[in-house]
Amino acid sequence: MESSRRCPEIRKDAVHNRWVIFSPARARRPSDFKSKSGTTTNAETRKECAFCVGHEHECAPEIFRFPPDSSSDWRIRVIQNLYPALSRESEPAITESFGGHTTTAAGFGFHDVVIDSPEHSTHLSDLSPPQVSDVLLAYRKRIQQLRTIDHIQYVQVFKNHGASAGASMSHSHSQIMALPIIPPTVSARIHSMKEHFERSGKCAVCEMCDQERNRDLVVDASVRFVSLVPFAATFPFEIWIIPRSHSSHFHRIDDHEASDLGGLLKRTLTKMSLQLNDPPYNYAIHTAPFVADSSTSPPFAHWFVQIVPQLGVAGGFELGSGCFINPVFPEDAAKILRQVVTDD
Amino acid sequence: MESSRRCPEIRKDAVHNRWVIFSPARARRPSDFKSKSGTTTNAETRKECAFCVGHEHECAPEIFRFPPDSSSDWRIRVIQNLYPALSRESEPAITESFGGHTTTAAGFGFHDVVIDSPEHSTHLSDLSPPQVSDVLLAYRKRIQQLRTIDHIQYVQVFKNHGASAGASMSHSHSQIMALPIIPPTVSARIHSMKEHFERSGKCAVCEMCDQERNRDLVVDASVRFVSLVPFAATFPFEIWIIPRSHSSHFHRIDDHEASDLGGLLKRTLTKMSLQLNDPPYNYAIHTAPFVADSSTSPPFAHWFVQIVPQLGVAGGFELGSGCFINPVFPEDAAKILRQVVTDD
Repeated sequence: MESSRRCPEIRKDAVHNRWVIFSPARARRPSDFKSKSGTTTNAETRKECAFCVGHEHECAPEIFRFPPDSSSDWRIRVIQNLYPALSRESEPAITESFGGHTTTAAGFGFHDVVIDSPEHSTHLSDLSPPQVSDVLLAYRKRIQQLRTIDHIQYVQVFKNHGASAGASMSHSHSQIMALPIIPPTVSARIHSMKEHFERSGKCAVCEMCDQERNRDLVVDASVRFVSLVPFAATFPFEIWIIPRSHSSHFHRIDDHEASDLGGLLKRTLTKMSLQLNDPPYNYAIHTAPFVADSSTSPPFAHWFVQIVPQLGVAGGFELGSGCFINPVFPEDAAKILRQVVTDD
Repeated sequence: MESSRRCPEIRKDAVHNRWVIFSPARARRPSDFKSKSGTTTNAETRKECAFCVGHEHECAPEIFRFPPDSSSDWRIRVIQNLYPALSRESEPAITESFGGHTTTAAGFGFHDVVIDSPEHSTHLSDLSPPQVSDVLLAYRKRIQQLRTIDHIQYVQVFKNHGASAGASMSHSHSQIMALPIIPPTVSARIHSMKEHFERSGKCAVCEMCDQERNRDLVVDASVRFVSLVPFAATFPFEIWIIPRSHSSHFHRIDDHEASDLGGLLKRTLTKMSLQLNDPPYNYAIHTAPFVADSSTSPPFAHWFVQIVPQLGVAGGFELGSGCFINPVFPEDAAKILRQVVTDD
C-alpha cells in the first residue's frame, strides 16, 4: 500500500485547530482496518423491542411522529428518553460555587430519541433515500421546537450504531440533546473557525469543499453536498458530509437540501459499511450555537455531519495530550471508500 | 445510594475550562460500576514476551536501564518502541501548506517504552513502593534527556493497562512520547489555568489540594501528594494525584518526592483495582510544555497525574460536543475509593 512507504506526518485541523499524528507504522495496510465483528453479525436474540411498532406503550412520552396523523403505520417517532441525561424539570438557573471559580449549572435540558424506523432490524442505511431524508426532517423539526425554549444554547444531534459505539438499543435510533451551555468542542470549534476567517478571509469548511484542490479526499458528492475524509482526520476512515453552500445552522436546511442529503448520507454509510465490515459507528451534527439574532449566518461558521467508524481504542496518549494517532492517511481512506459502487 | 436521589448537575472543570454532565439516572448505583472483566482474569496463554528478562534481543534498542550496570538482574529498561508513532529520523522542519491555512509538520519525535519490571505478570501496583518510585525516576531521567533535543516542545508520559485501554502488550510498561508540537489538550489546559490565575490570583490545581474545603473528594494523601476525584471529573472514578507544593514540571521532582509519590500511586491503583474489579486503565502525566527559561515555575501551571479506569463507552454525544456524561458523582466515587484499607 502507498501509506506503508510513507513517513509519519503531523497535520493541523484548521476547523478545530488541533494536531493529529498520521503514523502508517501503527497499522499494516489501510484495508486491514476492517471492524473485527460487524454490527449485524453480533448474535441478537430479540426480534422486537420497545422501539418497535406495537410497543409504543413501553416508551417514554411521544413528542411527535411522522406522518403526524398516523397510527400503527408511523414511519418515525420522536420520543422522550426513558433515562435522560438531563432533566426538563430542573430549574435552569446557573449557580456559581467554590468562591466564584468553579461554575455549577443545574442539569436542565432535553434528551430525546428519534426512532428512525418502525422495524427492529432496519438500519438507517437500509432505508430508502426519502426515508433517510425524513429522519433529517425530524431532527430539523425537533431542533426548531427546542431552540425557542429559554436557556437552551445548543442542540446536539447524534447517532450511536452498535453496542461498542455506545448504543444501548440495537433498534435504529438517533438522539437529540438540548443543553443550557455551549459544550467544549463547540466553543473551541467556533473560536477556531472565527480565527481562521479573520486571518484568511475565508470559511475553513468552505475551503474543504473546493473539490479541485481536495480531489484526493473526496468520497462522494451530490448536487448540494460533498462527503470527504478531512485532511487532518482525527480517526481512521472518519468522514464529513458538508453542504457546499455556506450555512451555519443545520436546522435551516430546506426540503430540497434534506432530500439531497438523505441520498448522500445513505450512500456514504453504505460505502463505509461495505468496505469496513459493517463497523459500529457514531455520527454527530456539528452546527452553530443559537444566537440572539438568528436570521444571519456568521461567515465563519459552517455546519457538517461527522461520521466516525469505531475501529480503534484511545489510550493514555490521547487522554493526556488530546492528540490522536491516526494510522490511515486520509487520501488512502478516501480512495478505499471511493472504490465502492452503490446501487442508487 | 446518595446519588440516586440527586438531580443531574453540570459542573465546569476549572483546569480544562470544560463542562461535564453528572447524571445519576444513567447508572443504577456507583458501586455497580465495576469492570465487567478484570484485566488479569482475561485468559492469557503466553507466560513470556519480548519485554521479559532474557528476551532483550527481541526488542528495539535500549536507551538505559536501572541499575545502569546490571545485566540479567535489571529492574527497569527504557527502550525504543518497535512501532514508533513518530520518527526520530524525520527532518523536524515545520512546513506550511494549502495556501498557508493548514499547517503540516514532519512526524519527527521520539516514542519510547519503559518496561516497569522484568517479570511478565507483575503489574505496576504489585511492585513495592520503592520500585514504583524507580519507574517514576526512569520517566524523569528520560524526560531530562529528551528536553535538551532541538524542536521537542512537549513530552507525554502515559500508561495503558489492559487491552481495552489500548495496551498491545500485557507485560507492564509505560510509554514516553516526545513531540515537536504542543498538543491540543496541553495548550488548552495551560491557557485555561492562566486565565484562572489572572482572574483569581490563584493556581486552579493548588486550590484543589485545599483539603479542608475538598474533604469529600479526597481519596488518600501522603506527606507531599494528595489523590482525589476532581469536582468535575470527566470519567467515572477518575483520580488525580497532585503535588501539594506548587510545581509546573513533573521532571523537576526530587528523589524524596518520587519516593513519596511511588507509595501513593501504588496505594491509589490498588484501591481502584479492589473496588472496581481490576479494570483496564490509563494514566497520563499532565505537565507544562518546555520553555526557554525553564528555571522558574509559572505560577499558574501545576503538574498532576490523571488516572482513568476504562468503565464506559464514549459515543456520538461526546464526539459532537466534547462534553462527557459522568454517571457517578465525584463525592460518591471518592467515598467508595476511600473505604479500601491497604496494607502499606
